[in-house]
Amino acid sequence: MKAHLLTIGDELLIGQTTNTNAAWLGERLSRLGLEVERTVTVGDDPDRMRDELDRSPQRAELVVLTGGLGPTHDDVTREVVADYFDAPLQTDDAILDRIRHYYERRGRQMPPSGPKLAQVPQGFETLENPVGAAVGLWHESTVGERTRLVAILPGIPEEMEGIFESSVRPRLEARDDVRGMQHRTLITSGIGESSLQERLRPVAEELGEKVRLAYLPSTNGVRLRLTALDGDSAAARDQLDRLETKIRERAGEHVIGTGDVTLEEVLGNQLRAAETTIGSAESATGGLIGHRLTGISGSSDYYAGSVVAYANRVKQDVLGVGTETLDEFGAVSEPVAVQMAEGVRQVLGVDVGVATTGIAGPTGGTEENPVGTVWLGYADAHRTRAVKRHFVEDRTLNKQLFATAALDLARREIGRKSEEEDEDWMPR
Amino acid sequence: MKAHLLTIGDELLIGQTTNTNAAWLGERLSRLGLEVERTVTVGDDPDRMRDELDRSPQRAELVVLTGGLGPTHDDVTREVVADYFDAPLQTDDAILDRIRHYYERRGRQMPPSGPKLAQVPQGFETLENPVGAAVGLWHESTVGERTRLVAILPGIPEEMEGIFESSVRPRLEARDDVRGMQHRTLITSGIGESSLQERLRPVAEELGEKVRLAYLPSTNGVRLRLTALDGDSAAARDQLDRLETKIRERAGEHVIGTGDVTLEEVLGNQLRAAETTIGSAESATGGLIGHRLTGISGSSDYYAGSVVAYANRVKQDVLGVGTETLDEFGAVSEPVAVQMAEGVRQVLGVDVGVATTGIAGPTGGTEENPVGTVWLGYADAHRTRAVKRHFVEDRTLNKQLFATAALDLARREIGRKSEEEDEDWMPR
Repeated sequence: MKAHLLTIGDELLIGQTTNTNAAWLGERLSRLGLEVERTVTVGDDPDRMRDELDRSPQRAELVVLTGGLGPTHDDVTREVVADYFDAPLQTDDAILDRIRHYYERRGRQMPPSGPKLAQVPQGFETLENPVGAAVGLWHESTVGERTRLVAILPGIPEEMEGIFESSVRPRLEARDDVRGMQHRTLITSGIGESSLQERLRPVAEELGEKVRLAYLPSTNGVRLRLTALDGDSAAARDQLDRLETKIRERAGEHVIGTGDVTLEEVLGNQLRAAETTIGSAESATGGLIGHRLTGISGSSDYYAGSVVAYANRVKQDVLGVGTETLDEFGAVSEPVAVQMAEGVRQVLGVDVGVATTGIAGPTGGTEENPVGTVWLGYADAHRTRAVKRHFVEDRTLNKQLFATAALDLARREIGRKSEEEDEDWMPR
Repeated sequence: MKAHLLTIGDELLIGQTTNTNAAWLGERLSRLGLEVERTVTVGDDPDRMRDELDRSPQRAELVVLTGGLGPTHDDVTREVVADYFDAPLQTDDAILDRIRHYYERRGRQMPPSGPKLAQVPQGFETLENPVGAAVGLWHESTVGERTRLVAILPGIPEEMEGIFESSVRPRLEARDDVRGMQHRTLITSGIGESSLQERLRPVAEELGEKVRLAYLPSTNGVRLRLTALDGDSAAARDQLDRLETKIRERAGEHVIGTGDVTLEEVLGNQLRAAETTIGSAESATGGLIGHRLTGISGSSDYYAGSVVAYANRVKQDVLGVGTETLDEFGAVSEPVAVQMAEGVRQVLGVDVGVATTGIAGPTGGTEENPVGTVWLGYADAHRTRAVKRHFVEDRTLNKQLFATAALDLARREIGRKSEEEDEDWMPR
């Protein structure tokens, strides 16, 4: 099935917002086996929107519109769609009730623009929004011999994603005419793209015509995506199984899971299984490790808290890092990382402490510790450990990479079976 | 002058790469006064590219193509353009020399695919690449009475940007038919889109034909963008000035700045100017406030650290929240928020403490405190304050919204001039 994306918003055209919705939808639809053929962005302009709607049905069986569903005067998608499909807008009382409720629960009156959100073009299904007030819209029809599916979603990424996952994806998966291209994703951690590619060279040589292997690096690690191009067959599945086994053999403990699993989840499951609690002592990461660990619902089972010790005074006063240690070795050093990890264990009364102290940049670099340097500390009841890593020049990236490296250090130390040496790694 | 962007690449369609080129070009072209009317992405597919080229000249005076200019077999832009414009490819010897040189300087032999980069469609100008090997291409023609400009740039962002800045922008700026459009963006905080729209209704009524006002909501607040369509004139500037003044009058202290400024920066500047230090006591936000404050380079001037007190035990042991208080009122309560803010002031020895305790979800909601509820605490040497807010159902969004609300509470308390009551707010 072919899909077109129509993303709407002046802010996209003038570059005030980067079109992450197109990338997100492209990825999800491809994974379901749809071929995204074209993505178009136009402004909040009824004529342009109509032009693009006119074009899409010629080739696409699915058109996804995003944006312009909000309550304000420049949100015109609802009206344009109603007009285009000759489907007059009608107020859906159940939705109007829900919207009124939505505001009441927050102790507010529904604003005068609220009822606009309850208007639905005749013949369109509404798709519940698990996150916000604006509902999504869905329409199925047949044009000649062809199916035509239209999904209309809000432009706010979290709302768009929520409605897609809860309502659009299940509708697509249930169809016979959406046929699988099979994907399998292996999540790796603690190894960069180039090193991984070296290790997997023999696997790459075995892929053949029908399977692709893609490297998807990010600050959370490198995802490996295997794609069997002609889909659902048992033979394709067997081949993916064989390749997965080979990759696991060669990438060792760097493969932390499959699918959508994250490093935070893997570590969380490990901690829960071992009935172990964790806390972080953060300088360079500024709270990001805590933020990432608490991104997982249920993390209170194993995560107690963090001390963000950005100022040296806090490292001393709260975490008990020695004044002499700071003076002699500097804040970005092995003994400080170890004392921070040990200190947070004591202060928070947790089993495992993990620590970061580094130079995220752009300023603060020295000859010995250039921007991108970080010392990671680990402490549990039996041992402490510190590791030095060097990443990139960019502050935002470094904070993410430092946090990932600290989480990965904890994962490996907690799960340690071998004494295999760590590889210095980067996302590329 | 109207512009269309045609960005080429399978990786954009399947979401492996986010289309940052479209945002970058959109921003630059808008700033020059061109109206970007449409952005289209298609794969590395000659037929689709031709389709889109066929469409663009009907309305756009400038077409910018990016991507598919590299040396590999799936880079087909050069061939498609040559064919479409009936401009046979010819090898440009000077460019071939430069490419050979480019590789030699890097101690490498020109790869067999190198000469492909020196092929230029007849009648096209070449645009030097200050960063990489592939040159850009430029073509001017007249179709009927209309000018038609075509710029073809590589897809690698640094190369695209380099060629645009050094060769495309000067060519556009030199033209009489490129005239400015003016943008002005006001950043707001602590007020939702709907409430803002209510307040700004009289402003919206004054816009007239030549100015647009757009609302751009996010978890960090709502940006307001004014656009004067016919550009550069002093009259347009005056009108934007008048509208900005009106908006500031009506939105009051919710307007925190203009342009690209963020809430974290505004708060940081405030703290630096007042020589005030801050620390956060975080339960529901899990470290996100610290992470956001330390996203700003130089934040060590005013940010000392945080205590992430996710477990109640940490609230008691580290922040000194009373056991009886927790028992009597529960963790998500006014007195706990206040004691956390006051506690972190003491523990970290900072001037201002800000605290969050809430239910991010999806589990943990109660009748009294449904998912999305947060108590925000503020404490300085003179007073404490707590505010209850209610946001959404989604964990990720809630964490961001809680953190934004806490940062905004600190901003307003520190900058407090009036006793104007806060408005309960949401991104919509």
